[in-house]
Amino acid sequence: MENDRPTVYLDNSNLSIVPEEVVNAMHPYFSTSFGHPALVHTPGRNSLKLIEESRKDISRTINCEADEITFTSGLTESNNIAIQGIAYAYKEKGNHILISKVEPPSVSRVADVLETEGFKVERVEVNEKGFVKLEHLKERISDETILISISGVADEIGTIEPLKAVNEIIEDKNPEIYLHTDFSNGYTKTPIDVQETGIDLLSVGGRKIHSPPGIGFLFVRDGIKLRKIMEGTLTTSTIRPGLETVPLIGGMRKAVELAFQHTHGNLTTIPKHNEKVRNLRDRLYENILERIDDILLNGSEGKKRSPSNLNISFRYVEGESITLKLSKKGIYVSTGSACARRSLKPSPVLKAIGRTAEESHGSIIFELSRYNTVEEIDYVIEVLPEVIAALRQISALEPEQSS
Amino acid sequence: MENDRPTVYLDNSNLSIVPEEVVNAMHPYFSTSFGHPALVHTPGRNSLKLIEESRKDISRTINCEADEITFTSGLTESNNIAIQGIAYAYKEKGNHILISKVEPPSVSRVADVLETEGFKVERVEVNEKGFVKLEHLKERISDETILISISGVADEIGTIEPLKAVNEIIEDKNPEIYLHTDFSNGYTKTPIDVQETGIDLLSVGGRKIHSPPGIGFLFVRDGIKLRKIMEGTLTTSTIRPGLETVPLIGGMRKAVELAFQHTHGNLTTIPKHNEKVRNLRDRLYENILERIDDILLNGSEGKKRSPSNLNISFRYVEGESITLKLSKKGIYVSTGSACARRSLKPSPVLKAIGRTAEESHGSIIFELSRYNTVEEIDYVIEVLPEVIAALRQISALEPEQSS
Repeated sequence: MENDRPTVYLDNSNLSIVPEEVVNAMHPYFSTSFGHPALVHTPGRNSLKLIEESRKDISRTINCEADEITFTSGLTESNNIAIQGIAYAYKEKGNHILISKVEPPSVSRVADVLETEGFKVERVEVNEKGFVKLEHLKERISDETILISISGVADEIGTIEPLKAVNEIIEDKNPEIYLHTDFSNGYTKTPIDVQETGIDLLSVGGRKIHSPPGIGFLFVRDGIKLRKIMEGTLTTSTIRPGLETVPLIGGMRKAVELAFQHTHGNLTTIPKHNEKVRNLRDRLYENILERIDDILLNGSEGKKRSPSNLNISFRYVEGESITLKLSKKGIYVSTGSACARRSLKPSPVLKAIGRTAEESHGSIIFELSRYNTVEEIDYVIEVLPEVIAALRQISALEPEQSS
Repeated sequence: MENDRPTVYLDNSNLSIVPEEVVNAMHPYFSTSFGHPALVHTPGRNSLKLIEESRKDISRTINCEADEITFTSGLTESNNIAIQGIAYAYKEKGNHILISKVEPPSVSRVADVLETEGFKVERVEVNEKGFVKLEHLKERISDETILISISGVADEIGTIEPLKAVNEIIEDKNPEIYLHTDFSNGYTKTPIDVQETGIDLLSVGGRKIHSPPGIGFLFVRDGIKLRKIMEGTLTTSTIRPGLETVPLIGGMRKAVELAFQHTHGNLTTIPKHNEKVRNLRDRLYENILERIDDILLNGSEGKKRSPSNLNISFRYVEGESITLKLSKKGIYVSTGSACARRSLKPSPVLKAIGRTAEESHGSIIFELSRYNTVEEIDYVIEVLPEVIAALRQISALEPEQSS
């Protein structure tokens, strides 16, 4: 039975596990001690206080003001509010938008739709490691450019993008451009300071940071106008109508508290568990390199990669088959392959770094977390070579003369 | 200390309490046994199964098909997806929209914005009990009308609207019109059958039905096109991108299961706890009538009122003062008064039924639930007359010669 063997969860970029401490932290907020934050009764005031304190805690982790934080229903909504919001609010100023070629669908598909509405969208190239080509970006900026959106850490491949350099180019060429970043793959994994990097809008989704899913936040620099994507009652936000999800905010606050270092009781911008996670990830990568042939690392080596991310293309096999086989062994990973993600095309991110369709279909994303152990990683190292070998034996993709 | 006296939570329309059973039902879905539903690994398949079963359960309670249910982040999003979605998808067909004058902001403010975008919006009058004037509606329908949005149960005052009669008018005058209803104040409180009433789109928010907040659903009749308000990855929905919030879906499913009657293990469209709640509400109302002078019932008496709702204007006092005073006694209610809801105007709903600003400012919404007890209601009956009397004594609004 499946229940008898270890389970190793390595799909934390899709949906990170929510530790018991965070689940417990949410618990009290479901009770009658917490109410609608617009009401003056005690439960309402308790909710308002929680929302305000959570904003303050989060603001410290990116170095902004508490009232520059808006809670949303997650990453997709944060990205939509930011990009649609800027585009429609500033369309009189210009209609040109730049995004990178390694953006997730909640950025790239919003951009696709804006194109059908008369905006001119250009997609900035990345190099073979996934770094945005700054020269290409520089050439594309014009007086018509109103928004640049570049992920802080590229989706799927973990490449840490040079946001500070992007902002220097903006300052130099057209300082009125707003810089948005989907930082969902970077938050709690690599430090960010929105003052130092000049970021104007920053999106995060709870599901990637051991917070409950269904909650996220958006930093919007004070003074920026956004056209809202939804209308309704505004309680504590001027950007996002609807009741703030009080228990999930309490859960996300706890997740944030657990993820960052503290100084004098205050949170800092420094993530807490990077070295542990990086060591586990490196242990996994080095052993895969040693034990499995015909693999390709997708993304960058070294410090400019998220410590939790490993993305490898196993040649001659399908990512979906690997995912399924590993699942039967209790190991849960994801893939950029077509069917598994229910899209018709291979991963646009892997295409952008020059991978062929075949290489892309064999890709596996291992997204580790601090809740993984050495024993778990060693179990993966034991199982994975057998799984790949077995699949290659029956693979139609394998070359006839495999060594 | 506040902790020594009973607390009576009567603000369930703003944020209903989440019982322990529902909190416990969510618990397992935070673990590594549940993953991204687009993935083929075991945790992903478990999530997909939960989502599909939850859709099926909910579909039975309104008599639709499972795949006509989309999960959203709550009522505000459900209403926005429905109304913006129809308006922009069918604007070539017509630009005329009808809503009632007793809609919540997530309907009425969406309509306001659509007006600025070239749509013609008309607001159908209601009578002094809050019932939509069918003659007025009938006169307003034209060949240009594409959407009618009328709450199943009017916000704040609990009036159960004649949706079936509205649909008959549509069938008679222009059968191509889509009928949307915000049913958030009716769901689990009064039965609904979307086939019988001819509803095309129906919105519900979890926060009003003892589900966790941050989740809701939208019924969209098969074949209806909607322009999406957000873009991103579509996993199990064609309408709403972004990851489904698996634990909250599990919680809402449990809340729904607890709220409806079952036949042969299947949920029905019949709510379960109406009589208990109605008796408590009637006990409260009858005692207020007996003990407090100068009050006005807002909304309807009898069967055409939600069993959980009581809305009373206490003349010569401010709703916010009542809310605060009651809160100090551990009783939590809400008000249509200005400041308490952070809006500048008195409740548009109370204005629509002919209440003056002064009457509106003295309004209190008691929204009961099946978790209230006779003892709690009797405590309110004991405390409320004293609170009102004390406030009236110091009120500048009170007539000089009170009897």
